[in-house]
Amino acid sequence: MNIILLHSADFINPDTVILKGRRKDHIINVIKAEKGDALSCGLVNANMGKGIISNIDSSKVELKVKLNQNPPPALPLALILALPRPKMLKRILESSATLGVKTIYLINSWRVEKSFWQSPILNDENLNKILIAGLEQGKDTILPQIFKKRLFTPFVKQELSDISKNSLCITAHPKTTTPCPTNINQQTTLVIGPEGGFIDLEIETLEQIGFKTVNLGRRILRTETAVPVIISRLFPV
Amino acid sequence: MNIILLHSADFINPDTVILKGRRKDHIINVIKAEKGDALSCGLVNANMGKGIISNIDSSKVELKVKLNQNPPPALPLALILALPRPKMLKRILESSATLGVKTIYLINSWRVEKSFWQSPILNDENLNKILIAGLEQGKDTILPQIFKKRLFTPFVKQELSDISKNSLCITAHPKTTTPCPTNINQQTTLVIGPEGGFIDLEIETLEQIGFKTVNLGRRILRTETAVPVIISRLFPV
Repeated sequence: MNIILLHSADFINPDTVILKGRRKDHIINVIKAEKGDALSCGLVNANMGKGIISNIDSSKVELKVKLNQNPPPALPLALILALPRPKMLKRILESSATLGVKTIYLINSWRVEKSFWQSPILNDENLNKILIAGLEQGKDTILPQIFKKRLFTPFVKQELSDISKNSLCITAHPKTTTPCPTNINQQTTLVIGPEGGFIDLEIETLEQIGFKTVNLGRRILRTETAVPVIISRLFPV
Repeated sequence: MNIILLHSADFINPDTVILKGRRKDHIINVIKAEKGDALSCGLVNANMGKGIISNIDSSKVELKVKLNQNPPPALPLALILALPRPKMLKRILESSATLGVKTIYLINSWRVEKSFWQSPILNDENLNKILIAGLEQGKDTILPQIFKKRLFTPFVKQELSDISKNSLCITAHPKTTTPCPTNINQQTTLVIGPEGGFIDLEIETLEQIGFKTVNLGRRILRTETAVPVIISRLFPV
């Protein structure tokens, strides 16, 4: 937790918040902060800044906050992911939130196991917890948006053209020799397939609306490794 | 498992192997291969190539193998990691093996919890399983070497200078404004700190032998995200 994320409900007046539960425990047990200490704070989907501890005991922490800084810039990226298995999804969403991805589509594909769509991880409340953990790590306040698309072809044919308009459109796919571009400064729509890859027909459907397949070298990466590798390659900071 | 990794003990004659257990199960249940199919194979720490299934039943798979290709080039990198918590260590080692890292030092540091050194994950047999899984994902045969160093200062002062001789020496550290270099073509020694970061004294000790601190932007990344991000940035393929 490199930033304490606040919600409107935490405010008892315009510059004072009271924290209980997980965040209070973290401030007391992990940061081991004391009265007068300044902590990095941010209001979810708004500004960030500092909070000075004005009161602290085992049941609550009171902070006087001044939120006058912008959160870090978002990545100019829409990430379209064939739904990974739940454990991997959790790690990918958390690291994507940390890295500054703000738009994520989870889509179906031939090799996505049907059972993955039944996972409780896909409930809004659980997704929210994962994204908050990612923002707390990366020191950001802006929650990514997640869209779930259960039908591959209608999504690609009817929605993806609009989503990807005026952006660089690429599909990461091991079966091509075109290398993934580096250091681009452009809005990008990036599609990543499931374990085992997209089937040829899916690649063709994506190519028909302008998605170019690119690879990441000879080595085949798990999705959870591929996501940070591609992001770092497209948008080095 | 994008490559079937073979051991000398699997060979019944110079071009024939018999597989049982985990690899046999994978060939039958996941790849669903049949007699006559060609599979990607490699001998651990040696060449890779193809294996044609010459016999298959529920108890074993026999392959005729031809191993006439070099494994992919290793990354010119020595990775020095403050020992992460066991679950994270597993993922970092696996993805590092997948990405082509061949030299990994696990070191102590002020903020490494003592209990991490007691984890059974650090047994050679368990480390070997993790690295093999990483190579199977990345289609490589060369096992990384892992060295465990329980004392920070003696390691840095007496060993690290030799290890890092003639290489670019960098420490990834959020508390600096120097950005991490990109797309270098040079042997590199990369040091990554623990959760919470190195303490100032540790950074100074590293600086004294020539390690420059570099950062990865405003966002603070977990080690498991930082490793692929930095590797992709230093060595885009």
